[in-house]
Amino acid sequence: MIASPYSIGIDIGGTKMSSALVDTKSQSDDPKQLMSNFQELPTPKDSEGFIQTLLTLIERQREASPNVTAIGISTAGTVDTRIGKVMGATGNLPGIRGVENLKERLEAATGLYVHAENDANAAAYGECRAGAGRGMDDIVMVTLGTGVGTGIVMNGKMIRGGHFAAGEGGHIPLSNSQERKCTCGRWDCWEAFASGTGLAATAQKYLASASSEDRELFLAISGKSASDVHTHQVIEAYKAGNPLAKTMLDAWHQHVALGLRAVLNLLDPEAIVIGGGMAQFVDFPKLHDITRPQIHD
Amino acid sequence: MIASPYSIGIDIGGTKMSSALVDTKSQSDDPKQLMSNFQELPTPKDSEGFIQTLLTLIERQREASPNVTAIGISTAGTVDTRIGKVMGATGNLPGIRGVENLKERLEAATGLYVHAENDANAAAYGECRAGAGRGMDDIVMVTLGTGVGTGIVMNGKMIRGGHFAAGEGGHIPLSNSQERKCTCGRWDCWEAFASGTGLAATAQKYLASASSEDRELFLAISGKSASDVHTHQVIEAYKAGNPLAKTMLDAWHQHVALGLRAVLNLLDPEAIVIGGGMAQFVDFPKLHDITRPQIHD
Repeated sequence: MIASPYSIGIDIGGTKMSSALVDTKSQSDDPKQLMSNFQELPTPKDSEGFIQTLLTLIERQREASPNVTAIGISTAGTVDTRIGKVMGATGNLPGIRGVENLKERLEAATGLYVHAENDANAAAYGECRAGAGRGMDDIVMVTLGTGVGTGIVMNGKMIRGGHFAAGEGGHIPLSNSQERKCTCGRWDCWEAFASGTGLAATAQKYLASASSEDRELFLAISGKSASDVHTHQVIEAYKAGNPLAKTMLDAWHQHVALGLRAVLNLLDPEAIVIGGGMAQFVDFPKLHDITRPQIHD
Repeated sequence: MIASPYSIGIDIGGTKMSSALVDTKSQSDDPKQLMSNFQELPTPKDSEGFIQTLLTLIERQREASPNVTAIGISTAGTVDTRIGKVMGATGNLPGIRGVENLKERLEAATGLYVHAENDANAAAYGECRAGAGRGMDDIVMVTLGTGVGTGIVMNGKMIRGGHFAAGEGGHIPLSNSQERKCTCGRWDCWEAFASGTGLAATAQKYLASASSEDRELFLAISGKSASDVHTHQVIEAYKAGNPLAKTMLDAWHQHVALGLRAVLNLLDPEAIVIGGGMAQFVDFPKLHDITRPQIHD
């Protein structure tokens, strides 16, 4: 039997679980070339349903490519990659909580090699091997979304840390003056400023201190009352040329840049890959300009 | 000829160059057991004098142990470890600037294997292999001195970054409000607060805003005028039980902790090893308490 060039990739999200066949021999960086046979199922809330759904997704891929030898799983939560134990998964994933040894259990059930990885880490490794960081050994992926996530590859290897909790870069502190509480309970984490939610909080702050004229101009475009202004309204007002919205988005770029400075000075990656729902709003030349680390002499 | 268990270690400082024989087979973490035949010479300011001094130090070690096979060099500056090129060394080391290929040059002259490394990186690796981080694969060393330096070992390997400039953790930003200029030209770097110089600047700030009574009490102990207060005076006043000095040192611990939070959240090391001249003033239980990262759920 010739080993298949395909592996099974599975992503576990709070709402759905997705899978595909991944062509591990492909030199393409086009996801449509790299992956095929996309499948998805709703994520069950109980452990047994969760395992059953995983097995169903695996079976569907093996029907398409019987000789696969390995399964890669990405999931929210801190993953002990030695045994595939998912620790501290978000409340979105109750089904995974009871599973102590995902790796062993799936390997026993399928006869295939299984590797489970934190999803931010998996994304960073994917970018390094087949995406924007291809050919590089040292990259950091920063995901700007509802929160801020980081995944780190250095010397060509995943950086998981001593307790599989590396890459929580969203909780780098940006201030020493207790300005904004983070969902983690600490003050002034990067995520509390540089996420979509962070931009919305910044917008609220600027609206509260703006002149009534500037505030009215902004609210006329956004079509919401001040308390209902969220990320979307800031972006819309910015696109319409509103000056207050530009100030808000400038501040957001500064917040993104502060965390990037921490990453750059500590790790000196060849590239920082920026993804997530907020990435589309990044002015990359500006961000590069305000982030660039000082050259030391 | 039996290969010697000894290698030659050389540290290049701004004032002197030191060397020793290092017992690479020793299981001890006592420097006196690990190293012997300590030698030192002044650091020449010109390239040829600099190379000559290196060769003299090497020769003195080979006289003591003729069969050594390798030389390890630690130096200030960013080191391209592939060719031993020292880039951007501090103004303290003019002699090293003209040397393009330290590794090749010394290997040709001595017939020994040569590896040159940034001194903060070398210190971190040393702590990981033979010091406080022994037996661990993931440690960060933080040096609190005149500046703040960091060295990172992850997955058992040095993290040098894509351009040999990783470990500049002293330039993690601690604030988004342009409070204090760093020597690097940027605002609010960790080093501008958590170094000895940073503590002195914090002391000046507190002295300026203190009540005249508190200020007089402090200055009576420190025996200096306010403008002459430096790290030493803060420590002396603190030891004498002065409340204002305690406030200053508390603030310094908070500044140290903010940078440690960035390190912990990004890298999750098994241990952070703290060294440097300021390490003796760290209240470790307190620092641990205020640094501990939030557990994410």
